[in-house]
Amino acid sequence: LQPLIKEKKNLLDSKIIHTNEFIKSNDKPSNVIRKGANTSMALAIKSVKNQESDALVSAGNTGALMAFSKLFLKTISGINRPAIAACFPSKQGEVCMLDLGANIECDKNNLIQFALMGQAFAKIVIGIKNPKVSLLNIGEEEIKGLSYIQDASTSLKSLNNIINYCGYIEGDRITDGLADVIVTDGFTGNIALKTAEGTSKFIIKNLKKSLTENILSRLSLLLSYFSLKKFKNKLDPRKYNGAIFLGLNGPVVKSHGGVDSYGFYHSINLCYKIVKGNLMKQVKNNLRHSKIV
Amino acid sequence: LQPLIKEKKNLLDSKIIHTNEFIKSNDKPSNVIRKGANTSMALAIKSVKNQESDALVSAGNTGALMAFSKLFLKTISGINRPAIAACFPSKQGEVCMLDLGANIECDKNNLIQFALMGQAFAKIVIGIKNPKVSLLNIGEEEIKGLSYIQDASTSLKSLNNIINYCGYIEGDRITDGLADVIVTDGFTGNIALKTAEGTSKFIIKNLKKSLTENILSRLSLLLSYFSLKKFKNKLDPRKYNGAIFLGLNGPVVKSHGGVDSYGFYHSINLCYKIVKGNLMKQVKNNLRHSKIV
Repeated sequence: LQPLIKEKKNLLDSKIIHTNEFIKSNDKPSNVIRKGANTSMALAIKSVKNQESDALVSAGNTGALMAFSKLFLKTISGINRPAIAACFPSKQGEVCMLDLGANIECDKNNLIQFALMGQAFAKIVIGIKNPKVSLLNIGEEEIKGLSYIQDASTSLKSLNNIINYCGYIEGDRITDGLADVIVTDGFTGNIALKTAEGTSKFIIKNLKKSLTENILSRLSLLLSYFSLKKFKNKLDPRKYNGAIFLGLNGPVVKSHGGVDSYGFYHSINLCYKIVKGNLMKQVKNNLRHSKIV
Repeated sequence: LQPLIKEKKNLLDSKIIHTNEFIKSNDKPSNVIRKGANTSMALAIKSVKNQESDALVSAGNTGALMAFSKLFLKTISGINRPAIAACFPSKQGEVCMLDLGANIECDKNNLIQFALMGQAFAKIVIGIKNPKVSLLNIGEEEIKGLSYIQDASTSLKSLNNIINYCGYIEGDRITDGLADVIVTDGFTGNIALKTAEGTSKFIIKNLKKSLTENILSRLSLLLSYFSLKKFKNKLDPRKYNGAIFLGLNGPVVKSHGGVDSYGFYHSINLCYKIVKGNLMKQVKNNLRHSKIV
């Protein structure tokens, strides 16, 4: 690593914490906790805990990263379970969604805590003054959906001094810019996120196929080169690479495993925004104002 | 209606059942049942029950349609709750998913019944000899997801004489053609369906914007006109308009409300395929072979 760091002036202050041990992508979280205390992942989380580092970004094993993060950093007082949050492109710019898979079963209190944390995230990271917060549901009427979602909705309405709660949002409006923060359980959030990713890939693949099928369409690509490049750039998933584990005493950011340097840069940039805007403080403020803590 | 029917020769056998009463789009299912026995929707379902009609297609109030259908047609023996099933475009052609919103909470037995009904649907309607059936989940490993999904997975493995069960599928693989039938609870299915719709619209809208932004890109549209038309045609949501309420003693098909004649045609065509292939018989066969009945 040292010769690589020497090439980049602004990395000269870097400190390398050496270890020979590391977590494999297929290691089970349970094994990891028992054996992995000296792995690169564990040492990185400990350095956040000891305030040697301000934040951590990892492209490694998600289950292990969550297990270590909970063990070493502990959840913030007032948070029962941390959630995974990330941003996607929307009509208005960006939308944040949580939980994306940390908690497959949730109750009313989890959703309220996710809303409070998500509001802080959208404020600090996306830079929205008074983020609109919605609960993901299968209809917009009050009587729709599972009862714990209805209960969370009632509670969020009473937190209107902290949260700009806008009611339910359906799956087809996620990218419409109606909400800046979309709150859901980890099972549904993960399905929604991945369905959006899959649909996006499917459409782009079909588009590419159509636009390269004959000479005319290939010629058209020359004329629309810059327009299509802009289109591609807006939806580039690498720009949204990086999910934060929200609710821990310290920022932990998870990058996709198979991403290139441009994607990984965006995960590091997410850490930068989180630290610069002091997201942890904003989350704690929200919890205190809501009288959860 | 009569002058319209007279214009089309192949509609001359049509029989009109007259009524002045109808269900409004915002009528509550509970009110509907009490007051609506002579509405057009109720009479249409009764005509299926009395075998005057082979199938029913409606673009009306979904909740009322489901309530009436359950009341008059009753669920098939062996089915605890009917499910909503529909098709979408996939890499291999079409994929069927259920439940899309009839049952927001499901247990293991619901999922198994959905799998048996979905298998019959893919066989008869899509025309796949031995449809691959998968459970929607947030990971592919056996230990992933909610416990009732894991239980359903174990049961489906033991039904391998009827169902070609292929394990879990994640949201990003729905359109990959890995599965022909995707089974899930109605809450998750509805969120996945709508997220896919929303993502699709969002991308197409951005594409349109990019391709019409300047003279060059607009010129390119002329060259790629036929290719883009083919692309648009493949993904045209009107071609997939029509969801069936599966598990009732008679086929009930729900069309989107805001669709044009081309979309409505596809709902009628779905009825045709269902009746021609005798879907109801295939569903009952599957249930009998699985020893659920």
